[in-house]
Amino acid sequence: MDSTVALYHAVQVVGANNVGAVTFNYGSKHNEREGACAELSARHLNITEHIQIDLAFMNEHFKSDLLQSGGEIPEGHYEDSNMVKTVVPFRNGIMLSVATGLAESKGYTEVMLGNHQGDHAVYPDCRKEFTDSFADAMRAGTYAGVQLVAPFVNVRKETIASVGHEMSVRWEHTFSCYKGGEAHCGVCGTCVERKEAFELAGIPDPTSYLS
Amino acid sequence: MDSTVALYHAVQVVGANNVGAVTFNYGSKHNEREGACAELSARHLNITEHIQIDLAFMNEHFKSDLLQSGGEIPEGHYEDSNMVKTVVPFRNGIMLSVATGLAESKGYTEVMLGNHQGDHAVYPDCRKEFTDSFADAMRAGTYAGVQLVAPFVNVRKETIASVGHEMSVRWEHTFSCYKGGEAHCGVCGTCVERKEAFELAGIPDPTSYLS
Repeated sequence: MDSTVALYHAVQVVGANNVGAVTFNYGSKHNEREGACAELSARHLNITEHIQIDLAFMNEHFKSDLLQSGGEIPEGHYEDSNMVKTVVPFRNGIMLSVATGLAESKGYTEVMLGNHQGDHAVYPDCRKEFTDSFADAMRAGTYAGVQLVAPFVNVRKETIASVGHEMSVRWEHTFSCYKGGEAHCGVCGTCVERKEAFELAGIPDPTSYLS
Repeated sequence: MDSTVALYHAVQVVGANNVGAVTFNYGSKHNEREGACAELSARHLNITEHIQIDLAFMNEHFKSDLLQSGGEIPEGHYEDSNMVKTVVPFRNGIMLSVATGLAESKGYTEVMLGNHQGDHAVYPDCRKEFTDSFADAMRAGTYAGVQLVAPFVNVRKETIASVGHEMSVRWEHTFSCYKGGEAHCGVCGTCVERKEAFELAGIPDPTSYLS
């Protein structure tokens, strides 16, 4: 939902012809559903360049319950300490690096990331301290001085819901549930957070949750 | 040669039991030879954890003559402007990110990179400005505060040759040539640089070059 609103935002600012989308298959339990949704959003927005990147080694070698190779997804609130088990080590660093290399190869000058304030509690590679340093590394490490744009780094997820609502985001083209089943479970950290965001934003939540 | 000397150095400092090696298959023309050499070095040093990471998407989507999908490898000195074509966009960013995620997953606290002063002219992601920012991002973006160690960032390649010589590095277990043929070509940028390093260090060069 965060990346999708970021994508709509990018299209609104620079136009679909100047935006490329990239999806990473790193072996999370919900990767397949996320990827299918990303494809629907990219088509809906008339983005012609949507690249799927295979990062299968993460599922093989990394330690996280978010991965297919990991344990059960914990239930509860996103900020609970048991959510630490869903952290995929340095995932944003890896995805941003690949996106930066792609940008430099294909002539894009900016990379957009949908991280937000609510991620900060558990995910170190979502915090401003991380994105600020990483942005410096991207600029220094590329000929084009590729820029990192993180429009939501200082806002809460309900603001993302509101911004998305104003842009008529097709929420049925987004998938959050870490369990990756047919429907959103409604009880894992990211389902709880999704529900809460719509509620706090005062927007009807079109998602059907199992509980 | 740079990474190999860095690996010997790491083993000397903390012992083989505390060092893991990681090799990236990103589709460069010399990837297969490099990987085979890395395996020989890791075995020689009694490193039990040597992980090979598949980054095939780089060959598919990135623009560089170093890649199998790119054009001919240019000949001449490493610092010549035509060497820019051998830059693989943000390669060090990608390799460091993956290594950082691996380190955090497996309990390593440091990631070592073999970049040196001679790389700076052409490769932006080898410069101190890049590694300093990236080190900050690694620290901020991981629970363990993974550290970047770049022992050669301020030294020239001939110093790497000298340091390696003192540690009895098996040079026959290193491969530099960007063309990736049976033997070192002797005329591509990295062959020219390799020859020069041994020469300036006053060390016999055991490499047989085609010309």
